[in-house]
Amino acid sequence: MKLILDFDTGIDDAMAIALALGEENAEVIGITSVFGNAEVDKCVHNASAVLKLLNREDIPVFRGASHKLGDTEDYVQEPASGIFHGRNGLGNIELPAGNNISDQDAIDFIIESANKYEDELILVTTGPLTNAALAIQKDLPAMQKIKGIVSMGGALTVPGNVSPFAEANFWKDSEANNVVFDSGLPIKVIGLDVTLRTLITDTDIEPWKEISEAGKTFHEIVTYYFKAYANSYEDLTGCALHDPLAVSVALNSDWVTGETFRIKSLYDEQQGRLVQDQAALNRGETPNVFVALGVDAEAYNKHFLETIKKAF
Amino acid sequence: MKLILDFDTGIDDAMAIALALGEENAEVIGITSVFGNAEVDKCVHNASAVLKLLNREDIPVFRGASHKLGDTEDYVQEPASGIFHGRNGLGNIELPAGNNISDQDAIDFIIESANKYEDELILVTTGPLTNAALAIQKDLPAMQKIKGIVSMGGALTVPGNVSPFAEANFWKDSEANNVVFDSGLPIKVIGLDVTLRTLITDTDIEPWKEISEAGKTFHEIVTYYFKAYANSYEDLTGCALHDPLAVSVALNSDWVTGETFRIKSLYDEQQGRLVQDQAALNRGETPNVFVALGVDAEAYNKHFLETIKKAF
Repeated sequence: MKLILDFDTGIDDAMAIALALGEENAEVIGITSVFGNAEVDKCVHNASAVLKLLNREDIPVFRGASHKLGDTEDYVQEPASGIFHGRNGLGNIELPAGNNISDQDAIDFIIESANKYEDELILVTTGPLTNAALAIQKDLPAMQKIKGIVSMGGALTVPGNVSPFAEANFWKDSEANNVVFDSGLPIKVIGLDVTLRTLITDTDIEPWKEISEAGKTFHEIVTYYFKAYANSYEDLTGCALHDPLAVSVALNSDWVTGETFRIKSLYDEQQGRLVQDQAALNRGETPNVFVALGVDAEAYNKHFLETIKKAF
Repeated sequence: MKLILDFDTGIDDAMAIALALGEENAEVIGITSVFGNAEVDKCVHNASAVLKLLNREDIPVFRGASHKLGDTEDYVQEPASGIFHGRNGLGNIELPAGNNISDQDAIDFIIESANKYEDELILVTTGPLTNAALAIQKDLPAMQKIKGIVSMGGALTVPGNVSPFAEANFWKDSEANNVVFDSGLPIKVIGLDVTLRTLITDTDIEPWKEISEAGKTFHEIVTYYFKAYANSYEDLTGCALHDPLAVSVALNSDWVTGETFRIKSLYDEQQGRLVQDQAALNRGETPNVFVALGVDAEAYNKHFLETIKKAF
């Protein structure tokens, strides 16, 4: 399966990039960057730097949206993202960019790829859905050709992580969520409902240090993430595999169980909250979004740890 | 199947009583009353009055909890319940009580019946879970003998109706929710996730007027409910079959689809909110509550309308 990784590259996104490169049936054709865990330019830099670190500068990186739909000013990293990902998005560990940053706009690359690869292509998003929404708004017929979108985001049956209602990615651009949900494209939402159960700890990543320079650097970056978790969550240890799980579900939907609902994203004080849209159902509209509700975390964590090593 | 209807008899509870009497495979052995749609004494009166209206004074009515766990003062109807159910709980239509109000305490009746009927008995609750929690606290081994509890309450994937988080029944006693959820008894939650899709309108109940005096009175009471809905909801017409659906699911679980989750009920500003308890899952605790997520509303509404008529 060909994947475009539409990422706001922070720490778990970096793990998801490495995982995607280690996954057997995945061909990453490009990373399109979006604002989120940091400003978009930092996310472009981080994606490029991670690919360079992993000796995969053959994969191009593209710059996408710098702010949510309707805004005119560029997004500036809010404190919570800084706590988890560091001010630079990679735990404040400085890595040089590669020679793989394209001049092409991310949205154009997504549309061009949709036309070229059609249902051999899945768009995996791990940040706000802004790039996906812009591509849908610009060329819906092209986007309808792809196999679908798999998104890390949302919290349907659990509290959010930026508000009692909302998960951070989907909180950042509620309008983009609804553009994507209403597009008719097959979309799978891999949210906090499942990702907060896929936890790895320092013992799990200890072996990374011995594998290679890349493994050692990943160990350092993820250790920063562990510390942020320890300071922020009372009831869990280690860190969640938010973004990696979305990549794996794109390749094998059996990793999660769930239901297809008619979903909408709310605004104002409940910004980015996902709920079943009962009014739409009562009008006869069909379910539009698969939401993951269960995961075999033990099996998934094992798969993750075995697969990511292949990229180091 | 033998049913105890643990009801805070308001308008949709009255419909659920009539429905239960019309359902072929149900034997209602008693109605245990709890505070909720009105004060408990009004709910006792209403249950008795509805049974008298339907010529079923052979079924006894019991008085249960007058306030939530831990409170010392009796619950007083809050304005929202008054809007939907009227100050007396039955649309301000005055009906005489029957001769079927028992002196036995509701909790004792529930426990006695659990010991007597064991897995032939289901407790159907349509108000706060306080009576169920008190029975579990008083005699867990007896309660573990019954087939299970089916409760109208909660909102997992949709906003609440008394707060952005919580549904009215489960909002009224969050501690009772957790006592029941943690009891190990099989529990099915039939919440706003599904009930707000089972809507009937004035056209559906028009024929009730011609059936009998009871049908005419029900028509009058439910018309009060329709008006409250019209004043309160912009995006739906008619009224929801909240409590009747719980009765029907007790008799035939195929009416809904759903998932079994590890559920807890929250407190404070998120009082009565249901969420997946990820920390408990990460500790290895097993799922404990079936939550209904989907319903074939068209088929259910048809069943409801055909069945309730038999009781008039």
